[in-house]
Amino acid sequence: MKCKKCGRKAIANLKQYKIALCECCYPAFYESLVKRSIKRHGIIKRNEKVLAAVSGGKDSVVMVSVLKNLDYNVEMLYIDLGIRNYSKNCEKIVKELSEKIDVSLNVVKLSDYGFRIDDVELKKVCSACGTAKRYLMNKFARENKFDVVATGHTSEDIVSFAIKNIVGGNIEWIGKLKPRIEGFDVKIVTKARPLFERMEKENMLYVLSLNLPFTIEKCPNTPVNDWKEIVYEIESKKTGFNQNFVRGLVRIGEKRGAETKYCKICGEVTSSDVCAFCKLVGRYS
Amino acid sequence: MKCKKCGRKAIANLKQYKIALCECCYPAFYESLVKRSIKRHGIIKRNEKVLAAVSGGKDSVVMVSVLKNLDYNVEMLYIDLGIRNYSKNCEKIVKELSEKIDVSLNVVKLSDYGFRIDDVELKKVCSACGTAKRYLMNKFARENKFDVVATGHTSEDIVSFAIKNIVGGNIEWIGKLKPRIEGFDVKIVTKARPLFERMEKENMLYVLSLNLPFTIEKCPNTPVNDWKEIVYEIESKKTGFNQNFVRGLVRIGEKRGAETKYCKICGEVTSSDVCAFCKLVGRYS
Repeated sequence: MKCKKCGRKAIANLKQYKIALCECCYPAFYESLVKRSIKRHGIIKRNEKVLAAVSGGKDSVVMVSVLKNLDYNVEMLYIDLGIRNYSKNCEKIVKELSEKIDVSLNVVKLSDYGFRIDDVELKKVCSACGTAKRYLMNKFARENKFDVVATGHTSEDIVSFAIKNIVGGNIEWIGKLKPRIEGFDVKIVTKARPLFERMEKENMLYVLSLNLPFTIEKCPNTPVNDWKEIVYEIESKKTGFNQNFVRGLVRIGEKRGAETKYCKICGEVTSSDVCAFCKLVGRYS
Repeated sequence: MKCKKCGRKAIANLKQYKIALCECCYPAFYESLVKRSIKRHGIIKRNEKVLAAVSGGKDSVVMVSVLKNLDYNVEMLYIDLGIRNYSKNCEKIVKELSEKIDVSLNVVKLSDYGFRIDDVELKKVCSACGTAKRYLMNKFARENKFDVVATGHTSEDIVSFAIKNIVGGNIEWIGKLKPRIEGFDVKIVTKARPLFERMEKENMLYVLSLNLPFTIEKCPNTPVNDWKEIVYEIESKKTGFNQNFVRGLVRIGEKRGAETKYCKICGEVTSSDVCAFCKLVGRYS
């Protein structure tokens, strides 16, 4: 299989886009997809100062690298959560990345607030970690005059989270699964998810193509995400499931103009001049 | 395995309810589940005159039988859609049911409007059939002074429809996936789905236990529902998925009182007096 752009050996066959690409041509193609998402959904504005929350995993590494390559005004934030060796290993990776792509790195330590995630009992650890990250990202961004906090959430993250929360009855979360959530109350900074239409395997190809530093180490506290496994399986049966699902989520809450009209022929309620049933009668009788 | 109520041989082991039941005790248990749904979600009111749309398949047969046994004021509607032998076979079953459970049967013929579903080209047949059924059910109910049209939709129907429509971007449909949709404009009759928390296998046990007439013949036009297959698979991995999902859907659109408060300790935005982060600091530092 050859690269459609330059004829070299392809590393990726992107069925959804009907294109095979080599490792030289893939990154620019990937970046064009993110650029289109950002523009179409107004995820980040050109004049905004962006704080990219980076964990050292492939997805956040991709996110900040792409924003840099698309010429956004971006800096990185690494939060040292105090998780055994994992936090220190990830910090090393993020420092290496900062030098490689020439993006300033800011580091915040949870231990400055008197505790580490390792102090939290296992049952509460993921919830506490989420609380700490959201709090510290927002506070750091506001105090340092960033307009937006960007995170590396992928379509799989968002879809699995959505299904898990519908099933759990936590419906208030669904409305937050948008690519951009405007800040409010001067205290809450805008959040942006520029990779919300991208998939993890696309991100993996990007870091490998550009030889970017990233960690494959998983957080030792993270349990297996059953919902993500289910989402991968659905995607394998229905190509495009994740992307279509996140695009659907964007539209939740959009108001449609649904004026009540009456069918000219039969008088039943309809959204156009002639109702769907009378159209059938007209066509087939 | 023995029936928990009477000690006879159990035919059903209902893991979700931690109970095994025989075919004599199962129907009453099943009916109590539907009764609870109807009450909890206000699906049908005691004084309402109910038109039960019955196709002859197990789910609609269960729906009307349960409503009758729960003493609702119910009649049946069968719509002869004009689908090869299928429509006539189903009508025979529904007539047999009507006599067996002593519920009046009304029959409407699509051919009275000048065409049959068999006249529609295959590509448009399911959409045309849906349009015709919705139109005729509503018109018949209104003209004959019914308060509610009840259908036999199960949790699998609703969940697969929801996922298919999120993925298809038809988000306006999601808000309609409720157990009761109030009528409006004097022309549109209220719709009710009393089995919205029930699963098909529970319905199958009910018709078999009571030896109710039903057809296993599938509509010759119905394509394989991939989304339903996916939903069955998720259920097999996550017991309760369907029920929890439909319960989540009910809550979509519910407004939560989300007053903006400020944390007494750090001044950040919170929903209670002390923010989640300061609670962590208090507990672990």
